[in-house]
Amino acid sequence: MSRAAMASAAFKARVRKPSLWNKLHTADELLHHFPNGSYIGWSGFTGVGYPKVLPIALADHVEKNNLQGTTNYSLFVGASSGAETEGRWADLNMYTRRAPHQVGKSISKGINEGRINFFDKHLSMFPGDLLYGYYTKHRTDGKKLDIAVVEATAITEDGGIVPGASVGATPEIIQAADKVIIELNTLTPSMEGLHDIVMGEQPPRRKPYLVMAPEDRIGTNAIPCDPDKIVGIVESRLPDMTSDNAPEDAVSEAIAANLISFLKGEVEAKRLPPSLLPLQSGIGNIANAVIGGLAKGDNFRDLTVWTEVLQDSFLDLFDSGHLNFATATSIRFSPDGFKRFYRDWDNYYNKLLLRPQTVSNHPEIIRRLGVIGMNTPVEFDIYGHANSTCVNGSRMLNGLGGSADFLRSAKISIMHTPSARPTKTDPTGISCVVPMASHVDQTEHDVDLYVTEQGYADLRGLAPRERARVIIEKCSHPDYKPMLLDYFNTAEQICLRKGAGHEPHILKNVFAMHIALEETGSMKNANFV
Amino acid sequence: MSRAAMASAAFKARVRKPSLWNKLHTADELLHHFPNGSYIGWSGFTGVGYPKVLPIALADHVEKNNLQGTTNYSLFVGASSGAETEGRWADLNMYTRRAPHQVGKSISKGINEGRINFFDKHLSMFPGDLLYGYYTKHRTDGKKLDIAVVEATAITEDGGIVPGASVGATPEIIQAADKVIIELNTLTPSMEGLHDIVMGEQPPRRKPYLVMAPEDRIGTNAIPCDPDKIVGIVESRLPDMTSDNAPEDAVSEAIAANLISFLKGEVEAKRLPPSLLPLQSGIGNIANAVIGGLAKGDNFRDLTVWTEVLQDSFLDLFDSGHLNFATATSIRFSPDGFKRFYRDWDNYYNKLLLRPQTVSNHPEIIRRLGVIGMNTPVEFDIYGHANSTCVNGSRMLNGLGGSADFLRSAKISIMHTPSARPTKTDPTGISCVVPMASHVDQTEHDVDLYVTEQGYADLRGLAPRERARVIIEKCSHPDYKPMLLDYFNTAEQICLRKGAGHEPHILKNVFAMHIALEETGSMKNANFV
Repeated sequence: MSRAAMASAAFKARVRKPSLWNKLHTADELLHHFPNGSYIGWSGFTGVGYPKVLPIALADHVEKNNLQGTTNYSLFVGASSGAETEGRWADLNMYTRRAPHQVGKSISKGINEGRINFFDKHLSMFPGDLLYGYYTKHRTDGKKLDIAVVEATAITEDGGIVPGASVGATPEIIQAADKVIIELNTLTPSMEGLHDIVMGEQPPRRKPYLVMAPEDRIGTNAIPCDPDKIVGIVESRLPDMTSDNAPEDAVSEAIAANLISFLKGEVEAKRLPPSLLPLQSGIGNIANAVIGGLAKGDNFRDLTVWTEVLQDSFLDLFDSGHLNFATATSIRFSPDGFKRFYRDWDNYYNKLLLRPQTVSNHPEIIRRLGVIGMNTPVEFDIYGHANSTCVNGSRMLNGLGGSADFLRSAKISIMHTPSARPTKTDPTGISCVVPMASHVDQTEHDVDLYVTEQGYADLRGLAPRERARVIIEKCSHPDYKPMLLDYFNTAEQICLRKGAGHEPHILKNVFAMHIALEETGSMKNANFV
Repeated sequence: MSRAAMASAAFKARVRKPSLWNKLHTADELLHHFPNGSYIGWSGFTGVGYPKVLPIALADHVEKNNLQGTTNYSLFVGASSGAETEGRWADLNMYTRRAPHQVGKSISKGINEGRINFFDKHLSMFPGDLLYGYYTKHRTDGKKLDIAVVEATAITEDGGIVPGASVGATPEIIQAADKVIIELNTLTPSMEGLHDIVMGEQPPRRKPYLVMAPEDRIGTNAIPCDPDKIVGIVESRLPDMTSDNAPEDAVSEAIAANLISFLKGEVEAKRLPPSLLPLQSGIGNIANAVIGGLAKGDNFRDLTVWTEVLQDSFLDLFDSGHLNFATATSIRFSPDGFKRFYRDWDNYYNKLLLRPQTVSNHPEIIRRLGVIGMNTPVEFDIYGHANSTCVNGSRMLNGLGGSADFLRSAKISIMHTPSARPTKTDPTGISCVVPMASHVDQTEHDVDLYVTEQGYADLRGLAPRERARVIIEKCSHPDYKPMLLDYFNTAEQICLRKGAGHEPHILKNVFAMHIALEETGSMKNANFV
């Protein structure tokens, strides 16, 4: 029986270039394309649109043959993948290197124990740098990626690959790869028409991205791919394993209320139009509360969204009638959110567009459109620097993501967080406002507004010492306000006297709160010497 | 006698809209436009093209009438101005606020002693934020700038203002100002034709900047200005008070040689074309040595430059025949450099273009063209974060400038510095490589390559612990290598054991070298506890 004859009807309906039917394989037949040491690219972004069949088959193969630790790969994905794939690979010690973002306990454990060489990079730049050969510059054979595994929901008549719920870095990963394996997913509906694909270009031949509004299309429906590169296609019936969205709580709702009050003030002062400007919102319960807040009230109409990831709350915003159009590189809905999305497909379809992360996160467009950027930091300091990645300066959480892409170039750059977080022993053992951020991902030059449940600090046009007073007053938790004010007043007095008082710091004391957290489980025990 | 009749022949020849001749005034006649508390904008960038007559007259007025400290202004300039203007204002305590960049001992003294509220901002964003009203949001009258004072070298038939040796933020400053005073400089030649002017636009109406190569023109020859805004024109015969360029020395030449060796390697590896990509180079002796090195050798031909400021060394690069075209927002030549420039005007004129800083520093174009960005930090750390502004975390030097505009979006982001600097007591008392930067302006995600006279560290694709080893090995001064390696090895051991080893730090020791510098005058006396 020919391979084409083995193909299901669903497969043939989705793969509209019949010459590709003969590339149908089982996963096992393709494992030989993954020798130890391979450089691999996957499709996927924030846990949707990633390949499942091959990564799971490879993990099974490693487990069955006791190859843990002796079969290692360098894996590049637009952002994070699913726990059953990237997490399981970490459990089986299958990584040499991983970039530029990840989610899940197994993989962050591997990174922080030094078993995985992980680096995070601005998501707008990662695909370009991969294509430049920056991440494989030590290879003597000049190759970039040995193989790409990408999920598709359809293949067009001319062999174009139609992605699923994310575009991410897939265009560049296909361009950079020697070989391509496609996982044709027939479980999820074809998402054809939902994508606007632009391929990676190298300078000096690059052209402007002629996007003047979130709904502007500048590309094609599918990712072109040389058929000779395709070494196999597998049919997949596995869903994206998303989880439920983090629920809103009183704190995140208070943060959202403060933020919405700020936005209303900007409209009143005519620094924003009544329909605001395209919104970017991160992931998590604060982001959900903010978008939920916009859906519930009747404060703003005719909103648009230019962001990286859409969560369930954007469906509410659509349904509220206040959201005209949204574009992102990924739709990461919960299982229920996806059901809702597919059920009302006709309603959402024309109001949504998925773009490569090179485009969704590109400063060219973010700055042109005047995006309102909103993200959550680990901590921020009294002068306005923020830590997005490394707890106490050292322990990696998930990576930088697109936070700095948006915060640097947004018209209004906003970070929101609870003012304090719990430790095992102290419900407010961590102050999210600190003297100096223990790791800096966003500088004082990049953030206009910090919002906590306590209030908001509008830093625009303020000098560092002015910023410190506003941040401590408006954003810090009452448990920490006196401590922070003490630090600042003492630092100011000492540094001004020395003629070094632009941004006053006492380097001996600057991490006293972090050290107390490490040693005692609460920043309240800080020992300022 | 009418005001027009008082105008010199040179003035009339330069001001081609005769109705403006009647606006000719002396500086004294215009002082009443500067009441205490005014928000003022000046033209100028890196000490060229700034107004002189009015600022000096105002300073004289304050001095003569003992108004020091009781007459204060908020001053906004594209970048730095001249010592006889912004420096003298600092001496006379005439500032409430100053942004976003400054040069000179007087003004940085005022900032670091807390008398001047200074903030630095990405130079690409400052003009836009000014126009949004971000820096004047607390004003109840809704005004942005009360008055702008701008130098012109000609005024066109339709009243367009032709700048001098810089464009900077002048377009937006004129747009933001209620009143405009023009200093028509008849000492320097008219620079008409050298500028490509684009005005500030607000989102959501912004359009792409259709620049595909350094020589592309997208604007007009002059800055349009509503004649009704112009409250006065003074004739100026004062030159830009530039100083000589910092000379190259053995260290800067060694740095340049290392950098050029890297660039040659990139061409060989085909990651750069033989004519490289548009170059951005900062100010100072290392930048001079690098550009000088490109001029002297025959390594690269048909170079182009997309930068912020051009120094004398670019004239050498033109004269070497290797440079085809250069564009910037300012030409800051030495007095001899300007003579040379005017003498060979016909030779340089068609190879040069001055743009607003919004355009020269815009990430849209820097990323599209794939600029090679090169800047000098105060210090950088073992994981690749750099400090561009604040010595020991607190003392402001000049401000961020455009460093982060270029480093974030360049195709190759390079920082170069000597590995050590002298203190009063120790010729290598300061290591420019430190465990943690005491202030972060460029994050680990923003710099590809660090270069010192010791060598270069190519960080692309490396995880933080890998970066640390390469930076210490290739870039640090031998006097500090063992100390840095000790810190890193200990931190790595401790943090990996804790499962927090992505970017290992010991917060107790992280600034031991900086503290030793403050307390003993040398980082060598660091006390790691």
